Amino acid sequence: MAMLANTPPPPYYAVIFTSIRTDIDQGYGEMAARMVELAQTQPGFLGAESARQALGITVSYWQDLAAIKNWKAHSEHLLAQQMGRETWYQAFKVRISKVERDYGF
Amino acid sequence: MAMLANTPPPPYYAVIFTSIRTDIDQGYGEMAARMVELAQTQPGFLGAESARQALGITVSYWQDLAAIKNWKAHSEHLLAQQMGRETWYQAFKVRISKVERDYGF
Repeated sequence: MAMLANTPPPPYYAVIFTSIRTDIDQGYGEMAARMVELAQTQPGFLGAESARQALGITVSYWQDLAAIKNWKAHSEHLLAQQMGRETWYQAFKVRISKVERDYGF
Repeated sequence: MAMLANTPPPPYYAVIFTSIRTDIDQGYGEMAARMVELAQTQPGFLGAESARQALGITVSYWQDLAAIKNWKAHSEHLLAQQMGRETWYQAFKVRISKVERDYGF
């Protein structure tokens, strides 16, 4: 069952990753699933939300910039980033943002 | 053809709207399309990206907090928000965040 990320009260950080895929599979699904699993074990990880249609959007939430920096430098994640640039994405953007306020139900 | 939002250099703001739908249609598709169209005409609007699978994610980008506040208070948008709360969403979260850095290709 789908769940929204259960983040703590702000402030915290959001990494907004948007992408457009190429049509090359080459292990993409397995790697994407592995990255979600691995991110969850990282210090400072607060949650993530993903959807893909024409465009893919993954927003991951983090305690602070240091946690984001560590995750970006993780060896397995570095390999995934390289495959992303070279093979899986025709376009992507990463936006690092500080969540100041939230509401909802 | 899908396109990533062509945002200016940071800083700017991102409104991260994530939701889980009910199974009630009641004009949802038309209203969602109308809100995208209307948002694009608002002062300070910089772009938007959307995808929905089990979870829906729409990220809209804005010049500053005043632009976000104006859009939130727009009369047609207020009606859409009310329908969202009462009819279309079983859960949603709005996160207002300041984009500090971005990269990609």
